[in-house]
Amino acid sequence: MFKVLVIHGPNLNLLGKREPEIYGKTTLEEINSMLRELASELGVYIELIQSNHEGEIVTKIQEAIGKFDGILINPAAYTHTSIAIRDAIISTSIPTVEVHISNIYRREEFRRRSFISDVAVGVVSGFGKESYLLGLRGLVNYLKEKQSA
Amino acid sequence: MFKVLVIHGPNLNLLGKREPEIYGKTTLEEINSMLRELASELGVYIELIQSNHEGEIVTKIQEAIGKFDGILINPAAYTHTSIAIRDAIISTSIPTVEVHISNIYRREEFRRRSFISDVAVGVVSGFGKESYLLGLRGLVNYLKEKQSA
Amino acid sequence: MFKVLVIHGPNLNLLGKREPEIYGKTTLEEINSMLRELASELGVYIELIQSNHEGEIVTKIQEAIGKFDGILINPAAYTHTSIAIRDAIISTSIPTVEVHISNIYRREEFRRRSFISDVAVGVVSGFGKESYLLGLRGLVNYLKEKQSA
Amino acid sequence: MFKVLVIHGPNLNLLGKREPEIYGKTTLEEINSMLRELASELGVYIELIQSNHEGEIVTKIQEAIGKFDGILINPAAYTHTSIAIRDAIISTSIPTVEVHISNIYRREEFRRRSFISDVAVGVVSGFGKESYLLGLRGLVNYLKEKQSA
Amino acid sequence: MFKVLVIHGPNLNLLGKREPEIYGKTTLEEINSMLRELASELGVYIELIQSNHEGEIVTKIQEAIGKFDGILINPAAYTHTSIAIRDAIISTSIPTVEVHISNIYRREEFRRRSFISDVAVGVVSGFGKESYLLGLRGLVNYLKEKQSA
Amino acid sequence: MFKVLVIHGPNLNLLGKREPEIYGKTTLEEINSMLRELASELGVYIELIQSNHEGEIVTKIQEAIGKFDGILINPAAYTHTSIAIRDAIISTSIPTVEVHISNIYRREEFRRRSFISDVAVGVVSGFGKESYLLGLRGLVNYLKEKQSA
Amino acid sequence: MFKVLVIHGPNLNLLGKREPEIYGKTTLEEINSMLRELASELGVYIELIQSNHEGEIVTKIQEAIGKFDGILINPAAYTHTSIAIRDAIISTSIPTVEVHISNIYRREEFRRRSFISDVAVGVVSGFGKESYLLGLRGLVNYLKEKQSA
Amino acid sequence: MFKVLVIHGPNLNLLGKREPEIYGKTTLEEINSMLRELASELGVYIELIQSNHEGEIVTKIQEAIGKFDGILINPAAYTHTSIAIRDAIISTSIPTVEVHISNIYRREEFRRRSFISDVAVGVVSGFGKESYLLGLRGLVNYLKEKQSA
Amino acid sequence: MFKVLVIHGPNLNLLGKREPEIYGKTTLEEINSMLRELASELGVYIELIQSNHEGEIVTKIQEAIGKFDGILINPAAYTHTSIAIRDAIISTSIPTVEVHISNIYRREEFRRRSFISDVAVGVVSGFGKESYLLGLRGLVNYLKEKQSA
Amino acid sequence: MFKVLVIHGPNLNLLGKREPEIYGKTTLEEINSMLRELASELGVYIELIQSNHEGEIVTKIQEAIGKFDGILINPAAYTHTSIAIRDAIISTSIPTVEVHISNIYRREEFRRRSFISDVAVGVVSGFGKESYLLGLRGLVNYLKEKQSA
Amino acid sequence: MFKVLVIHGPNLNLLGKREPEIYGKTTLEEINSMLRELASELGVYIELIQSNHEGEIVTKIQEAIGKFDGILINPAAYTHTSIAIRDAIISTSIPTVEVHISNIYRREEFRRRSFISDVAVGVVSGFGKESYLLGLRGLVNYLKEKQSA
Amino acid sequence: MFKVLVIHGPNLNLLGKREPEIYGKTTLEEINSMLRELASELGVYIELIQSNHEGEIVTKIQEAIGKFDGILINPAAYTHTSIAIRDAIISTSIPTVEVHISNIYRREEFRRRSFISDVAVGVVSGFGKESYLLGLRGLVNYLKEKQSA
Repeated sequence: MFKVLVIHGPNLNLLGKREPEIYGKTTLEEINSMLRELASELGVYIELIQSNHEGEIVTKIQEAIGKFDGILINPAAYTHTSIAIRDAIISTSIPTVEVHISNIYRREEFRRRSFISDVAVGVVSGFGKESYLLGLRGLVNYLKEKQSA
Repeated sequence: MFKVLVIHGPNLNLLGKREPEIYGKTTLEEINSMLRELASELGVYIELIQSNHEGEIVTKIQEAIGKFDGILINPAAYTHTSIAIRDAIISTSIPTVEVHISNIYRREEFRRRSFISDVAVGVVSGFGKESYLLGLRGLVNYLKEKQSA
Repeated sequence: MFKVLVIHGPNLNLLGKREPEIYGKTTLEEINSMLRELASELGVYIELIQSNHEGEIVTKIQEAIGKFDGILINPAAYTHTSIAIRDAIISTSIPTVEVHISNIYRREEFRRRSFISDVAVGVVSGFGKESYLLGLRGLVNYLKEKQSA
Repeated sequence: MFKVLVIHGPNLNLLGKREPEIYGKTTLEEINSMLRELASELGVYIELIQSNHEGEIVTKIQEAIGKFDGILINPAAYTHTSIAIRDAIISTSIPTVEVHISNIYRREEFRRRSFISDVAVGVVSGFGKESYLLGLRGLVNYLKEKQSA
Repeated sequence: MFKVLVIHGPNLNLLGKREPEIYGKTTLEEINSMLRELASELGVYIELIQSNHEGEIVTKIQEAIGKFDGILINPAAYTHTSIAIRDAIISTSIPTVEVHISNIYRREEFRRRSFISDVAVGVVSGFGKESYLLGLRGLVNYLKEKQSA
Repeated sequence: MFKVLVIHGPNLNLLGKREPEIYGKTTLEEINSMLRELASELGVYIELIQSNHEGEIVTKIQEAIGKFDGILINPAAYTHTSIAIRDAIISTSIPTVEVHISNIYRREEFRRRSFISDVAVGVVSGFGKESYLLGLRGLVNYLKEKQSA
Repeated sequence: MFKVLVIHGPNLNLLGKREPEIYGKTTLEEINSMLRELASELGVYIELIQSNHEGEIVTKIQEAIGKFDGILINPAAYTHTSIAIRDAIISTSIPTVEVHISNIYRREEFRRRSFISDVAVGVVSGFGKESYLLGLRGLVNYLKEKQSA
Repeated sequence: MFKVLVIHGPNLNLLGKREPEIYGKTTLEEINSMLRELASELGVYIELIQSNHEGEIVTKIQEAIGKFDGILINPAAYTHTSIAIRDAIISTSIPTVEVHISNIYRREEFRRRSFISDVAVGVVSGFGKESYLLGLRGLVNYLKEKQSA
Repeated sequence: MFKVLVIHGPNLNLLGKREPEIYGKTTLEEINSMLRELASELGVYIELIQSNHEGEIVTKIQEAIGKFDGILINPAAYTHTSIAIRDAIISTSIPTVEVHISNIYRREEFRRRSFISDVAVGVVSGFGKESYLLGLRGLVNYLKEKQSA
Repeated sequence: MFKVLVIHGPNLNLLGKREPEIYGKTTLEEINSMLRELASELGVYIELIQSNHEGEIVTKIQEAIGKFDGILINPAAYTHTSIAIRDAIISTSIPTVEVHISNIYRREEFRRRSFISDVAVGVVSGFGKESYLLGLRGLVNYLKEKQSA
Repeated sequence: MFKVLVIHGPNLNLLGKREPEIYGKTTLEEINSMLRELASELGVYIELIQSNHEGEIVTKIQEAIGKFDGILINPAAYTHTSIAIRDAIISTSIPTVEVHISNIYRREEFRRRSFISDVAVGVVSGFGKESYLLGLRGLVNYLKEKQSA
Repeated sequence: MFKVLVIHGPNLNLLGKREPEIYGKTTLEEINSMLRELASELGVYIELIQSNHEGEIVTKIQEAIGKFDGILINPAAYTHTSIAIRDAIISTSIPTVEVHISNIYRREEFRRRSFISDVAVGVVSGFGKESYLLGLRGLVNYLKEKQSA
């Protein structure tokens, strides 16, 4: 049974409470429920955390070594500024999928640069809360293919 | 029942036959089979085409007006050079999802710019053939939410 | 009697049917009627074509050699991406006027670059359907002055 | 009856006397005559001024409030350097058409940037003295359409 | 009675103790006293915190929801690197004023970019400790005008 | 008693009459009244001028030598284009405060560059008419501190 | 016996008829004769095509799989804009030589970027019609060395 | 006898009174005396003006047509921002020499760009007041050589 | 006896366990042992910490005031993104040496920018674990020279 | 009989001895033999030199005036840094062909800029040792055509 | 009596023999005669050298220490590429004047950057051979002023 | 016993005699003595040269093949301009360490680019003369580790 760590980056705890025109009305709790449900359906174990601290996210990724088979991360603002999270993903070599709720290509120019995308397995962006579910499916599919390879 | 047009851009007809280290071993026919299967599972009608011609893809998107509810497109090389395809998507206003087999962020610098991403509903990149399946799920989910909105 | 070839670029066949807030409500057929009317008033012969294909537009420009005295072109999306159309204009040396319905300076940054402008006689941009009529007047005036020079 | 203010920017008083290979042989007086003639034909009132002073042009645009329905401006060198003229056009909200005698896209790189184009109704460039006449037609047509809207 | 949260970013706890030629001799404690005094004079409640942690500042801004009417922030180094703080300000929609003790335009090139300025109500920069007092006045004035609007 | 020269740059004479959504409804006359009132409260003498001419503003700054202790300037459009005003401020060495009514960081990219900021004492931006009052307070405070230093 | 496909890109059908000062007076037919002659001398089979269509060139390169040992291409305008042709060359892995009649380094800045050069075996530029002959020699030499390796 | 117009740009009237560490202690009057003396020595007639107005300088250059054989200009701040002065020099075709008192290459980055240099006969920079004298010598020498050519 | 604080930045706790091809096989503990040994040999006191938190590193640097004579830091990912750490080093004025295990010039483009290098005494990069030892020697030598100066 | 000077730039004396994966196994002596053989076949006289010194190459090109009809140069590293060699080629006006053994477009970004290409007759790149032979053929062909013109 | 070293950079030995349309018809020998004559007139000793070698020029500048009071240099191509010559000028602290025969601002873009200008006393450009004479006058004047200071 | 070649680049022969505020007061001879002493202590043979000529440095590196095990180089100005030295290091494959006396990150922008760093084993910068000693230690340590690997 695959084990997946889901990491929600900074400000995502406000989801559904603020800026619904960009991020929709779904709260982080509802997204977590949906993720747990899909995990159960796909037969994988998941654990979910949220943090506003870059350093804490780095540490969580490091601690995933040996405990998790894959990481599903929405790095939010740190997508565009954190080389430390990038390095944690590279160092731990845990397959990581990057997801974004909003379509980052429609927003400010500086949101187009991601320090994570090229070290991630894949990227899902713009489908609202569904981005998480697609990301989880993509990650689990990747782990299965790798296992059977 | 939603109707989805799947468009494979230039050189994708060679899929699975060339450069397996980048694009995997699955052929376009196999991807099409998988897409038909998932479409059937999701209860949507799909039609699939491939073209090496920018102008033909533009025309296909235009002709989709009134016939299709959504478009799933892998614009391949035209992702980075075609404003005409972008304009066709804008003009027809048909919800469009952009997918890429490989992780475009790991490749040449010029593959980082997409003329499609910011006019698409969402983007899926890097999951191999699975990108198509995730994209189709994302598109259908989007159409359902829009319908029920 | 001067002969003028009018070329409408990609997606202009949708004119008046889509995005009226940007391009107005006039259809391509109506624009063509207005152009025919003005041509008749100015005493020039015109022929009108539309194409979504870059290569076809290149070929049409080449075939205009010896048949047309001037070209009125709205290259649409190809304005910003086609060096091939530019080269066709340079190679054939047929005086060409570039027109745009919308004000391209108010739109996306990448629409500011034109591969056509500096090889055109002149450019008219932003007057809606009137841009075509001004462009035709400008072209005919240019041809007359050249003739009388 | 529409009232139009025509503004000729810096150095245009030398027109026809200097650099005929770029700007033609027509003098500013001749252009003004042609403009008066066309204005009369189109049934509009026009007033014509020339100034080498950025500040004076700003003031003239401001003073046009309530007196003129539209502005036809050839900002010449100030096209590329004057945000003050841009702000005057924005502030007064008088529909403004920008014209250039020469094809600015064929000249120095820095002539490609215009602070006026994206706040203008439309732009006409490259047709020699005819640019003014096309610009006036375009402006009057715009005012008529706006009135009848 | 308006409630204002004052946030001092990284290294500001060293104020007055180090680099007096850039930041002056006033300590953070003295600035806080001055701010409390002015708050009392203006009839507003203020709370003051300092943090070297980006994540902590993000959390403090989030926790201000429902508790504070406005935020006065000197983001110091995070001005130029933190999209997370920017996102927190956007998400909470609490009116925020950005202040800087030194004139950031006289320093390194990279200090010219602020991720905060365009999501702030206003910016005050270069007046030494007075920047805080001007910022507080500006914020309170803004809140009053908004209330009376 | 300090003497302060207040300079309003190009187009600010239209304030409150045009574009209230950006600049508010307050006219320049009202701002001047408020400035006079605050000056009186702070015990400083002020003189107020407005000009659309770059050269005139340069001359006014030069003539301030020996007559004024400080300058409060809203250079408007010239903020971004005038090195001559910058040089006048440098040459006269009169302490100068730069103010902007709107938040220039929320507007066009080219409004982000200021030729004045790094030669000014400080900058206040975005607080509407209040920007002027904050700027005057900041300037007077600066002059007092300098005097007592 | 090696088989070589020669592809002439857009507008090359006009060769020798237009712009002789840039491209010389030799027509495409004469170049083809010279190529056939040299091919015969070198003992290789060649086939020659010209197309104005990017998509058609892509398809021709794809269809060369299994039929041709090498490709000699003058991509003309598509050199600078076509990632699709680049991808076709990468995908088919057929050794390809890029030739240009004129010295592209002496022309417009945008002609300096080639999407083909770094996926080609080699590049020959500036020798007029001779470029084709040198390119064919270089390609055949490459194929021989590869064979004997 | 050659006639030379000497134009001093904005802020140069403050010369010698302000910023002696950059511009030296010599006043504009002293420079003018030195220029008159050298002119007399070289047997040329000179006229000297100073202006803070870009438009006035443009007009002065235009009025020099037919009256002066050469122009010696220190455009000061307008060196870097005025295309209008550039155009006046181009339009009048009067041989013009550009001089700078300070070494502009040692100052702010934006002082490195000159809109005048490439339309001037030559440039002299960095020799203090001597720059003017060298510039006058260079201009007169140029006029003599042209005359004798 | 000099006191040196050694700071290991984010992800360095994984050293020797991950990516040996880039960072070698030595663990952080081994590096620390080597550093302690060399410190003892050089007669200096050292204290060693590692942190994934930017804010914590800032605080540690601040707390070093009065306790340590020098800092040896490997800022890892924060090298390229942290102005806060830069400001801490500037503010505390404690001589700081920057070291990198890998040759940062051989890696991604964004690793070439360091916010630390120009405020450090010196930089050592690329010698593997030896970088730390060379850095410590360099720092101690610097402190000795400063003391004896 | 044409006389051709062949110049091998810096480090080419190591050819075939180092980095065979980039430059092949052929030594400079072998390339020289092949060049002599081809020269003999083409009926031209050649002289061959190698130098690591930019200044020496400049001098050799200068001394070729009157002695040689053409130059075949592989400027190696100086391709990208030497304006002096460029100037020597321009000054002497001797037709020059630039060759590169490796495909410079596949290497570091800075190898894409050539100071030689736009002043050369033509460029051959990427064919290994064959580049020299193709270059010599191209040069001789050019000289013949020029002679017969 | 001041001693001045005149250094002519690469390719200047060809002066007057090649490219007279850019550099005039005067030979280096004639320029040297004119310089000797002016030196005699000004009462200074001069020595003149020319070199195509960057390293040699560096060495000559170094050897000038203690022997020469000033250097007059036309660095030609090395102006734009040699930091070594720049460093030699900085290191020796001998006042240096930079001269150019042609107007470097009218030529290729890369000739606009000078590594010498900001470490030179002053720059003279564009006056043909006269540039040298003006440069010598400027240098001698500078040395005199420095002496009398 | 390892053999190390120490190369001092252009202008370093002036060390200690000029610009002591940047490079310290130690002469090159003293640095060489210190290097010899440390070499003796580390049990390695060293040879030391200095050259102002890029080509000579290239040749020295080439001649080191088979004679030296490592190179310690301070390329000085050539660090930023010499691809030829870079190529020599690549071609010879001799492990090379780059050192700088001053902190190049604190100086002109163009000193930030090094053509050597990414082909060197490691870089030491900013420690004054100590940089050489640290560099030698680093190089010898590298050679030992490589030997024992």
